[in-house]
Amino acid sequence: MTKQIVKVSSKGKWEEGVRTTVHVRDFEPIVLDEPEELGGTDVGANPVEYVLAALSGCTSVVISLIAKELDFKYTDVEFENEGTLDLRGLNGVEGVSPHFQTVTFKVTIETDESDQRLEELKSEVIRRCPVYNLLKDAGITLESPWVKKEPVHTK
Amino acid sequence: MTKQIVKVSSKGKWEEGVRTTVHVRDFEPIVLDEPEELGGTDVGANPVEYVLAALSGCTSVVISLIAKELDFKYTDVEFENEGTLDLRGLNGVEGVSPHFQTVTFKVTIETDESDQRLEELKSEVIRRCPVYNLLKDAGITLESPWVKKEPVHTK
Repeated sequence: MTKQIVKVSSKGKWEEGVRTTVHVRDFEPIVLDEPEELGGTDVGANPVEYVLAALSGCTSVVISLIAKELDFKYTDVEFENEGTLDLRGLNGVEGVSPHFQTVTFKVTIETDESDQRLEELKSEVIRRCPVYNLLKDAGITLESPWVKKEPVHTK
Repeated sequence: MTKQIVKVSSKGKWEEGVRTTVHVRDFEPIVLDEPEELGGTDVGANPVEYVLAALSGCTSVVISLIAKELDFKYTDVEFENEGTLDLRGLNGVEGVSPHFQTVTFKVTIETDESDQRLEELKSEVIRRCPVYNLLKDAGITLESPWVKKEPVHTK
């Protein structure tokens, strides 16, 4: 199968201190900042928080895609993630990665499907999700429990 | 030096189709979606676009940090980046990475500093920037030209 290349892009501008505004297509600008204790004005999430948001959003897209392929029915999904960083990396200490040491990523999915079917969905999502694999390929210790929640059925 | 661990986190919820809303601290929700041709409602940037935004925002933070260390003066910074993805990865073709194949990332910095000082700033930013190193460690082919723009000096 020949390559199916797509391009994505963004343009950004430093505003002041550690605050930056980024434009993607015609959307409202994305504002990235840092909390005051890290020298920012705290008017937007920080860059690594946006990476965590991208991880959830991307997993959501891929769940939708693969659920269609598998005819897997679900009625709700919630995402919670947490990353740890060792600031020594950012501060220049040799041998310490400046990005995530670990990321835990819990996916709670409301479905009547069996555990086996859920496992099938999960393994395919994890194999094909762009942002998940970005973190995995970067050598981050990733833990991702998927939890099933039974839908409430009314009689 | 002992570890300096910081934690970041986010919570998200699938809205419909491929659209997800993510909450980071108390900020306005981050909306992630896909264009209509990818099955979305196109009300927000997509997850990999947010990763590109994070790359610019993160570089901006680290420029600010390291410029202080080096006493490097600058008056403006602009960021432009473009990533390519091969959709075969997302579509499940074995051996094709689902995330970025390449990322080009141009940084235009307005400064009176010498080329050598700019090179010094750049190499330290690249060594210590969390999101840049996330992409690098994931094996993405990264090209990042830094271009100097002379400030306009009024007499």
